[in-house]
Amino acid sequence: MTSKSSWSSRTFAHFRRGGKLEPFRLLKQDAHNLRRRWVSDWTVFNQLVIASAVYVFFTNILPGITFASDLYVLTGKSWGTIEVVFSTGLCGVIFAVFSAQPLTILGVTGPFSVLAENLYELCNDSFKVPFLPVMAWSLIHSAWMHYLLAIFNAHDWTMQYVTDFSADIFSLLNSIIYFHKAAMELKRTHEQMPLDSFLYAMIGAIGTCLVAILLSTATKWKPLFGRVIRMGLSEYAAAISIILFIGIPYIGDLANLDHGRLAVQTSFRPTNPERDLFLVRFWELPVECVFIAIIPGAIITILFYFDHEISSIICTVERYGVKKPGGYAWDIALLGTTTALCGILGIPPANGLLPQAPLHSESLRHWVQAEQVASGAEESARAVGVVPRVYEQRYSHFAQAAMILVFVSPPFQQVLGLTPTSVLAGLFMFMGYQSLSVNPMLARFFHLLTPPSELPNLPLGVSWGGVHAYTVTQILVTVAIFVVTLTVAAPGFPLLIIILVPIRLCAMNRIWKRETLRFVDGWACREGKPEDDRSVGGDDRVDADGRRDLEHGEERGKTR
Amino acid sequence: MTSKSSWSSRTFAHFRRGGKLEPFRLLKQDAHNLRRRWVSDWTVFNQLVIASAVYVFFTNILPGITFASDLYVLTGKSWGTIEVVFSTGLCGVIFAVFSAQPLTILGVTGPFSVLAENLYELCNDSFKVPFLPVMAWSLIHSAWMHYLLAIFNAHDWTMQYVTDFSADIFSLLNSIIYFHKAAMELKRTHEQMPLDSFLYAMIGAIGTCLVAILLSTATKWKPLFGRVIRMGLSEYAAAISIILFIGIPYIGDLANLDHGRLAVQTSFRPTNPERDLFLVRFWELPVECVFIAIIPGAIITILFYFDHEISSIICTVERYGVKKPGGYAWDIALLGTTTALCGILGIPPANGLLPQAPLHSESLRHWVQAEQVASGAEESARAVGVVPRVYEQRYSHFAQAAMILVFVSPPFQQVLGLTPTSVLAGLFMFMGYQSLSVNPMLARFFHLLTPPSELPNLPLGVSWGGVHAYTVTQILVTVAIFVVTLTVAAPGFPLLIIILVPIRLCAMNRIWKRETLRFVDGWACREGKPEDDRSVGGDDRVDADGRRDLEHGEERGKTR
Repeated sequence: MTSKSSWSSRTFAHFRRGGKLEPFRLLKQDAHNLRRRWVSDWTVFNQLVIASAVYVFFTNILPGITFASDLYVLTGKSWGTIEVVFSTGLCGVIFAVFSAQPLTILGVTGPFSVLAENLYELCNDSFKVPFLPVMAWSLIHSAWMHYLLAIFNAHDWTMQYVTDFSADIFSLLNSIIYFHKAAMELKRTHEQMPLDSFLYAMIGAIGTCLVAILLSTATKWKPLFGRVIRMGLSEYAAAISIILFIGIPYIGDLANLDHGRLAVQTSFRPTNPERDLFLVRFWELPVECVFIAIIPGAIITILFYFDHEISSIICTVERYGVKKPGGYAWDIALLGTTTALCGILGIPPANGLLPQAPLHSESLRHWVQAEQVASGAEESARAVGVVPRVYEQRYSHFAQAAMILVFVSPPFQQVLGLTPTSVLAGLFMFMGYQSLSVNPMLARFFHLLTPPSELPNLPLGVSWGGVHAYTVTQILVTVAIFVVTLTVAAPGFPLLIIILVPIRLCAMNRIWKRETLRFVDGWACREGKPEDDRSVGGDDRVDADGRRDLEHGEERGKTR
Repeated sequence: MTSKSSWSSRTFAHFRRGGKLEPFRLLKQDAHNLRRRWVSDWTVFNQLVIASAVYVFFTNILPGITFASDLYVLTGKSWGTIEVVFSTGLCGVIFAVFSAQPLTILGVTGPFSVLAENLYELCNDSFKVPFLPVMAWSLIHSAWMHYLLAIFNAHDWTMQYVTDFSADIFSLLNSIIYFHKAAMELKRTHEQMPLDSFLYAMIGAIGTCLVAILLSTATKWKPLFGRVIRMGLSEYAAAISIILFIGIPYIGDLANLDHGRLAVQTSFRPTNPERDLFLVRFWELPVECVFIAIIPGAIITILFYFDHEISSIICTVERYGVKKPGGYAWDIALLGTTTALCGILGIPPANGLLPQAPLHSESLRHWVQAEQVASGAEESARAVGVVPRVYEQRYSHFAQAAMILVFVSPPFQQVLGLTPTSVLAGLFMFMGYQSLSVNPMLARFFHLLTPPSELPNLPLGVSWGGVHAYTVTQILVTVAIFVVTLTVAAPGFPLLIIILVPIRLCAMNRIWKRETLRFVDGWACREGKPEDDRSVGGDDRVDADGRRDLEHGEERGKTR
C-alpha cells in the first residue's frame, strides 16, 4: 500500500506547480514569449526575406500539387489541387500570424495523404459512410487531442529528448524520399509517354536541378557581376531555374512534343462536383460514426504532433543560430485549431513540412559579426567571430502562404498548369540535394570512404571506428525506415523516428563511448563556436541535445 | 651608291656570325640542347604521365576521326579515317622520339583539311590531274621550305615577337571553334535524326562534358576517398566520362534508338579502293605539275610553320613552368621531314595541334615546392613558395601516338566505331571548356561584368578602363577571326594571328599605356611569382613576352 500511495503521490507531483504535467505551464510560457517577440517579427524585412518567400512558395506549392493528383485518384475525387492549395495557403497564413515560431512551413504531407487514402477506402468500401464528414470529425477529435498535448506540456516529456541522431536521420530520410519521388516521376513519364517525351523529361529534370545548383553557388563567383546580382542569382536560384525550364518546352521542336504537365483545376469550387461550397455538413453524421472517428483522430494526432514537432526542431537546429524563443506547446494548440478548421472546410489539413521548413531557415540564414553575446543569467559576455543567424520574421512565411492562396484563383491555377512534371522532378532533386548537403551525415559518409591517414584529427577519446559505426548505424536505420515508407505501414514512420529517441538514450550509450556520442551527436557542429552563442532565456528549443544527453547519461550512471 | 652599298652590307651582316640570318645558328643550338635533355626525357615516368597519355589519346584521336569524315567526302575518298589515324600516330611517334620539345602534340588540323579539300577541287575539276601525287609533291616542296626556315632561324625574326596578346586570342579562338564544332555536331544530329535521337544526343553530349568537368574537380573533394583515387578520377576525367557515355546508349530503351556513331573503316588499307598500299607514285607526275605544286607547297608551309610554332608557344607559356630548353628550328626541320613522308605515303600530314598541345601540358602540370632557383648568369638564388612544373618527358607523347597507331588495326577501328557522335560533341565542349578555363581572357571578361567597386586593385599606373578596352579588343578580334574561319578564307586564319603581332608591337603601344600592356600582356600571370622562376640558360622559349615587348617599346621610344 505504501509503495502504491507513494507511486500515486509521485504521479500527482507531476501535475503540481513546476511538475512535468503541470497544466498550461508551457502554454503560459509560450504566450509570454510570443508577446515578447511578435512585434519585432514584423520589423525585419529585406531582400533575403523576399527571396526566401519566393523560394518557399515554389518548393511548397509544386510538390503539394503532385500529392493532390494522387489524392484526387485515391479519395474518389473528394480532394484535388484546389483543396491542397487552399489548405496550404490558409494554414500558412494563420501560422504566419499566430504561431509562436514562424519558421516552420506548413503543407499537406505525404504521410497524411496515405492515411487519408486508407481512411477513404475504409469509409467507402467497408463502412459505407461518407468520407468527408468522417474526416471532419476525425480532425475535430484530433483538435482537442492537440489541445491536451499542449496543455500537459507533451513537448517536455517527449520531444525534448530528440537529439541530432534522430533529427539527422529524419532529414536524410526526407532527402531520400525526394530523390525517390523524382525517380518515380520520371519513371511514370517513361511508362506513359513516348521515348522522346521521356528523354526531354530527363533533360528538363536534370537541367532544372543543375541550373538551380549552379545558380545557388553564385555568391562564390567573385569577382563576376556585382555583389547584389550574385546574391540575387543565388537566392532566387530555384525560382529562376523553374521559370527557365517551364519556358524551354515551348521552344522549337519541343513545342510539338508531348509534355506531362501538372494537373490543375480551373474554377474555385471543391473538386467533387457534388459539393458546392467549402463546408462539410459534419453535424449530419450518425452519432456512432462520430465516436468511431476518435480512432482515426488519434492516429492523425500522433502523426501531426510528431511530424510538426520534428519539423520545428530541424528548422531551428544549432547551425541556423536561431535566437528568438519558439513555443512548441502554443504551436501544437494552434495546429489543433487549423486541423479542425480544415476538417470543417472539407480540405486536407496542413502541418509542419520537411524539408521545406529547414530549407526556409536555410534560405534566411546569413552570417553576422558576433557582437558581445550575453549568456543568459550569467551575464558573461565574450566577443567571437562570425556566427550564423536567421532572419526571424513573419513576412516570408506570410508572403509564401498568401501567394499560395492567390493561386487558388482560376487564372493562376492555369499558370501552375504550365509546369511540366519534369520540372517538378528537377525541383525534387534540388530539394533533396539542398537538404542532403547540409546534413552532417553526408560529411561523415564521405569520411567512411576516406582512408584513415587522410581523415581530420578527432577530439581526445574519440576514434574513427566508433564514428564510422555510428554513421553506418544511422544510414542503415534510415534505409530501413525508407523501406517502411514504401509499404502500407508508411503513415507509421514518424513513430519509428520516435522509437529512435529512447534507443539513442538508453541502448546506444552502452555501445558507444560518451566522447564519441558527444562528438557526433550535437557537438560536432559546435566546433570552434562559443557554447553560449545560442538562444537567450525562455527558449525551450532542443539545441543542447548533446549536453542534455550527457547529463542524462550521467544520471543513468548514478542510478545503476 | 653609298647608301645602297651600306644597305647591302647591312643585309649581309645578318648572315654573318651572330647575325639574325646566320645559317644553322638556331639549329646548332637546338641540337646542343636536345643532346643535353634527351636522356633525361626518358627518366621521368609516373602515374600522371600515363593519365596524360590516355587523356591526349582521346582528345587527339576522336576529333581527328571527325575531320576524317569531312575529308572522305571532300577529297573524293582519297583520305578517310585510316589515313588520319595513321598520320597522327606516325608523326606523333616520330616527334615523341626526335623532337626538341616533346610537349607539342601533333594531329591533322582543320585548316589543313580545308586547304586539302580546296586543292582536291582544283586538281579534280580544273586541272584534271591526280590529287595524291600533286599533294605528295606539294608536301615535298613544303619540306625543303621548312628546312630553309629552320636553317635561317625564322623563329628569331618572326615568332619571337608573339606575345600573350596573340597567344590568348589564338587560344580563345580554339575554344570557340570547339564549342562551335560541338554545336554543329548536334545540329547535324537534329537535322538528320528523329527527335528522340537528337534529345538523347543532347543528354550524351552535355552529360559527357559535365561528368568530365565534375570528375576533373576531384582533387578538391578532400576529404573523400584517398588522395590517389581523387587524383586518378581527376586525371582520367575525360576518359572515364567518354567510356561511360559510350556504354550508356546500350542500356534499356536507348539500345533501340538510332545513334549517330563515328564512321570508321575495318581494314588496314588505303580508303580509296583504287589504292593497294600506302605509297604514292609521285615520280609519275608530269614535270609541269611538279613545279606548279610549289604554290600549294608554299601555302602549306606558311600554315604549318605558324600553326606548329604557335602550338609550341602556347603549350610552353609561363603558367606551365616549363624548364627544359625547347628547339623551334629543330622541330620545324623535323616537321618538314614528316610532312614529306606523309606526302609520299599518301596520307594527310600532321602538325602542332590546338588545343591538344596546351591541354597536354595542362595534364602534366603539377606544383612543386620551389627550391633555390639559380638565375642564369647572376647565380643569385632565392627560396620561393610553390611553383608550377610540367613533367617534361617523352613517354606521354610517345604512348598516345603509339596507341593511336594501334588503332589503325581493324579490330580497334571497330571499337572506335562504337563511339556515338554525341560523346564527341561532349568531348569538344569539354576541350573548349578546359582551354577556356585557363585562358587569362576569361578572368578579364568576368572583370568586364563586375562593377568597378568590387574589382581587385591594379598596379600603379594601370586603370580598369585601359584593361577593359584591351579585353574588348581581344574579344572583338577573336570573333572577327572566327567569322573568317567560317568563310572560304578559313585556311588563311593563321596569317591573321600573325598580323596581330606587328599590330600589337607597333600600333597598340600608341593607344595603351605601357603599364597597362605590361599588366595584361605577359605580366598578369606572373603576379606573386618570382621573376626568375623560369627556364635556366639555353632556352629560347618566348615566355618573357611582356618584358621583351617592353624592351621593344623602349627601343622604339629611343629611335623616334
